[in-house]
Amino acid sequence: MKKLINDPFDVVDELLDGFTQAHADLVRLAAPHVVARHAPVVGKVGLVVGGGSGHEPAFAGYVGPGLADAAALGNVFAAPSPDICLDAIRAASTGAGVVLAYGNYAGDVLNFDLAVADAAREGIACRPVLVTDDVASASLDERERRRGIAGDVFVFKIAGAAADRGDDLAGVERMARRANEACSTIGVALSACEVPGAGRPTFEIEPDEIEIGMGIHGEPGIERGALQPADAVVERMLDTLLRDRAQRGDMPGEVALLVNGLGATPYMDLYILCRAALQGLGDADFEVSRIFVGEYVTSLEMAGASLTIMDLDDELRALLDAPARSARWPA
Amino acid sequence: MKKLINDPFDVVDELLDGFTQAHADLVRLAAPHVVARHAPVVGKVGLVVGGGSGHEPAFAGYVGPGLADAAALGNVFAAPSPDICLDAIRAASTGAGVVLAYGNYAGDVLNFDLAVADAAREGIACRPVLVTDDVASASLDERERRRGIAGDVFVFKIAGAAADRGDDLAGVERMARRANEACSTIGVALSACEVPGAGRPTFEIEPDEIEIGMGIHGEPGIERGALQPADAVVERMLDTLLRDRAQRGDMPGEVALLVNGLGATPYMDLYILCRAALQGLGDADFEVSRIFVGEYVTSLEMAGASLTIMDLDDELRALLDAPARSARWPA
Repeated sequence: MKKLINDPFDVVDELLDGFTQAHADLVRLAAPHVVARHAPVVGKVGLVVGGGSGHEPAFAGYVGPGLADAAALGNVFAAPSPDICLDAIRAASTGAGVVLAYGNYAGDVLNFDLAVADAAREGIACRPVLVTDDVASASLDERERRRGIAGDVFVFKIAGAAADRGDDLAGVERMARRANEACSTIGVALSACEVPGAGRPTFEIEPDEIEIGMGIHGEPGIERGALQPADAVVERMLDTLLRDRAQRGDMPGEVALLVNGLGATPYMDLYILCRAALQGLGDADFEVSRIFVGEYVTSLEMAGASLTIMDLDDELRALLDAPARSARWPA
Repeated sequence: MKKLINDPFDVVDELLDGFTQAHADLVRLAAPHVVARHAPVVGKVGLVVGGGSGHEPAFAGYVGPGLADAAALGNVFAAPSPDICLDAIRAASTGAGVVLAYGNYAGDVLNFDLAVADAAREGIACRPVLVTDDVASASLDERERRRGIAGDVFVFKIAGAAADRGDDLAGVERMARRANEACSTIGVALSACEVPGAGRPTFEIEPDEIEIGMGIHGEPGIERGALQPADAVVERMLDTLLRDRAQRGDMPGEVALLVNGLGATPYMDLYILCRAALQGLGDADFEVSRIFVGEYVTSLEMAGASLTIMDLDDELRALLDAPARSARWPA
């Protein structure tokens, strides 16, 4: 695939160099592969987010007031090393503890856990919260094995707002877990992406095919078939989301909707998907009170999209609405 | 190309339906293919923007306080009809006159001019300002023939801020023209897009090729060659931009930089391009005091990017910085 990059080994360093220059009013490079606010707010619980690169604007795009204090960034589609995670924790810590919010992937869990142990030895109390919103990635019986995808962003926003209003470490952790519990996401992929330097796409897909439930690194989904019109694709996606919710006993109610583009899908298509999702959710007796459309958690130049719904109550709505300023919120 | 759409004939209506629902706090569908603020600000000069669809978030994404009052939207890559333009003018008018800012394309000029004549008969004074920032689209001798591309957004922002601070019709027109004069853009394309229903891409390009100066509808550029590393591509782009400026007698100074993605190009690549552009502009003695990176004026799922620089002085900087809120500013 054609890319506007230099040496594939330099993409993350160069991306972060460009990013921190473009958003110098908000962030700095606190350490290699660590983007942080210029100064953490003393007394506030810190929030660290992170994961592999290639999902821009995640994760550095969500560092700023009312959101994360630091982002730990790995190579493309690879977990940040324990050292990077620890540097991010240090950058976010002012003594009130640090909540870590990141997608549930083996490498991220391992490396963040190692960093948490090191941080504890330095006297920094950390609480990891794994995002597990992807309903296609494991059955409801094994919900704790689910991966984190675009729901990341809602969890970051809620946790960041909770920290910003002065919640203590347990409180911020609790709100992050509530946000994660409230989120469900399903994605579809139309085309693959290519990790810089890999020389081949992350997966093969025919010109007339779509895959429902594919993960943001090309992890297999739950169904592959012929590409359908947008309304039919959304109906299939909502079926999966709403069946999963019903199995959990969640009733229709007020939700926020996030229509997320994976990289190559135009806004035209995203707004057409949004329209269909609003129709389908309305028909199923949901009240969609907050709507976000854009590229929030991408997969390089993959074509496709995901739909996330987050249940809202007065507290989650207030935290979602709370002021925040980062390079890409709202994206 | 794979698209997440329904009937190709419905894409614009469905896109606008989704868009106006997603951004119902900011805009409404004032008439078919016209997105407008809920109510124009009485006594303020109105600002209408517009052009073909397929360039989302342009143009509806720039309707809101401090920006445009209404957007007139055509079918995909087609000018809005005179009726649509007139409806947009009516939606933006409260008696102080209306400035129209749009890219210099024959169809848009013809249809907006017809609408301006009709508006005059209704007592609405209009001043059209054509955006002509694309340095690759005509020589400097024929500068008035140049097309408008991503520089659109800077012109909209400056004109919107001038109207918002209370400038009269001639004043808003003057600032829009100053912004256009101050803007230069050059684009590159890596892959084509497909107009929904067309059944074929807008142009052919080999897997290892890049075209410098291609327009946002696939208009031929100034050079096609082998894809180079990002730094070399940016050097070639800046050479063209800066040579054009030098021929006009413009000296290096303070500028705003816009790195615009055409649709399929990831943020990773855009920030790597941004880094190279900042380096190149710094080496050429420019001070880049404002930086924007994202998808501002796209071409459906085309891969590629453009670089826009706008000369800043105290007045243009203040207008660029002035508060504004729309679906996609900053994008």
